[in-house]
Amino acid sequence: MTQEQRPPLPSAARTVFFVSDGTGITAETFGHSVLTQFELRFRQVRLPFIDTLDKAYDAVRKINEAFATDGHRPIIFSTLVKAELSDVIRQCKGMYMDMFQTFVAPLEQELGVKSTHTIGRSHNIVDSEEYRNRIEAINFSLAHDDGQSHKNLAEADVILVGVSRSGKTPTSLYLAMQYGIKAANYPLIPDDFERGRLPSALYQFKAKIFGLTITPERLSEIRNERRAGSKYAALENCRYEVNEAELMMKREGIRWLSSTTKSIEEISTTILQEIKPDRREY
Amino acid sequence: MTQEQRPPLPSAARTVFFVSDGTGITAETFGHSVLTQFELRFRQVRLPFIDTLDKAYDAVRKINEAFATDGHRPIIFSTLVKAELSDVIRQCKGMYMDMFQTFVAPLEQELGVKSTHTIGRSHNIVDSEEYRNRIEAINFSLAHDDGQSHKNLAEADVILVGVSRSGKTPTSLYLAMQYGIKAANYPLIPDDFERGRLPSALYQFKAKIFGLTITPERLSEIRNERRAGSKYAALENCRYEVNEAELMMKREGIRWLSSTTKSIEEISTTILQEIKPDRREY
Repeated sequence: MTQEQRPPLPSAARTVFFVSDGTGITAETFGHSVLTQFELRFRQVRLPFIDTLDKAYDAVRKINEAFATDGHRPIIFSTLVKAELSDVIRQCKGMYMDMFQTFVAPLEQELGVKSTHTIGRSHNIVDSEEYRNRIEAINFSLAHDDGQSHKNLAEADVILVGVSRSGKTPTSLYLAMQYGIKAANYPLIPDDFERGRLPSALYQFKAKIFGLTITPERLSEIRNERRAGSKYAALENCRYEVNEAELMMKREGIRWLSSTTKSIEEISTTILQEIKPDRREY
Repeated sequence: MTQEQRPPLPSAARTVFFVSDGTGITAETFGHSVLTQFELRFRQVRLPFIDTLDKAYDAVRKINEAFATDGHRPIIFSTLVKAELSDVIRQCKGMYMDMFQTFVAPLEQELGVKSTHTIGRSHNIVDSEEYRNRIEAINFSLAHDDGQSHKNLAEADVILVGVSRSGKTPTSLYLAMQYGIKAANYPLIPDDFERGRLPSALYQFKAKIFGLTITPERLSEIRNERRAGSKYAALENCRYEVNEAELMMKREGIRWLSSTTKSIEEISTTILQEIKPDRREY
């Protein structure tokens, strides 16, 4: 839709570095959330696994090179835990923002315990129950994508329904990957509309069904990317399917939201608030 | 493996709140990275979509209730952007950590521009090219999971290979979802080992092939969860497959890593560093 119609953001002519002794994902997520507050584009470089002095000095060299090239101070988002490493990076010719020293130190005081300050603690993540739940949920969501299997639906935390291409699959996978939520999904298809009933396998699980809808215009666009000019993608057909799906969800008392202008992150958060899976609070 | 053998972390008897005017994902990711520095368990509550004064006062009530229940100050990780909302939350009986005021204000000065401070700017994410790339990559990775399709392999950014259950599928989906990387994956199966060659569809794309391996012991464990007592899961068979797969990858000069103790986040970061897809720097 609209990105092409918008003027691109002006360039900040700045390089942003995400520096971490691990994967750098936290540094990047945090940095992005700060940077989106500015209507500027930044050149972005991730420097993960900075876990020795040598690598830290190498990172400083890269940062200083960017300074020389850009003519402006680079911006550094760091999640380095070890002081001897962050002390090196801090000497660079950039603006240094340190997530850990800013927040971990005050927390040590509040909690009355020292932080582990262990590089690589997150490497044990693979053995954790939370991680294994996530992997299991991904496998579950894949096996229950697009109504593929009725098996073990009792195990599902949520069952998404909606017309084809309303956003069910990416949302299911995101719920699984991010939260370890077992999310099955079922397409609502013309057969269901003619019968005027949900797929019968779903009735006993109605409490955990959540619907996605979408505007017919956006749906037609998305379907045309896949099958240009087909009846499936035609606006008139999309209007029919969306209208029937919404009627059915209303009739069955199913909660739903429109995915038209929502990201999978936003859809997932809303679903978690509505469904409130047992295992934790949202 | 090991989680069961470890004593559970002691409880901090503290409640942690993630407060945001959006989904709360950034607040949660950031908060987790700080909290994992402490060997303590925390009760965790996400308070997303706090975008009005009423909701902010409601959040303060919840935080103060936790204080009364726990007998300790709750800990608040906030990504609230609007000062009138964060000023309300700040009055709570908790320890308030504000990511935006700590980092956005200094950046405004550095960049010489005001931040947009617009709640809901991230709601436009759906129209962005980056977001559409991610959704397209998820669809691509799903369609090219487990060697399902040879079509459009030229479009793949990376092709993962490895024995069944070595971690290819969750890694492919994570690469797609997080980075918009089109990741196909192909299982290496006994047929390939007997032929002594990679699946022939892959040869022309060798530059973007990356291998995953795993210890036979861990592989046998994982396979036994799916098909207990099968030949497929037997340790001896896993030893054979892993050994053959590693020999083949060595022979073909394919880069690979072991997924045994690595999370999909860590595997993905390493792959990005090795493969260096064109479209951005890592």
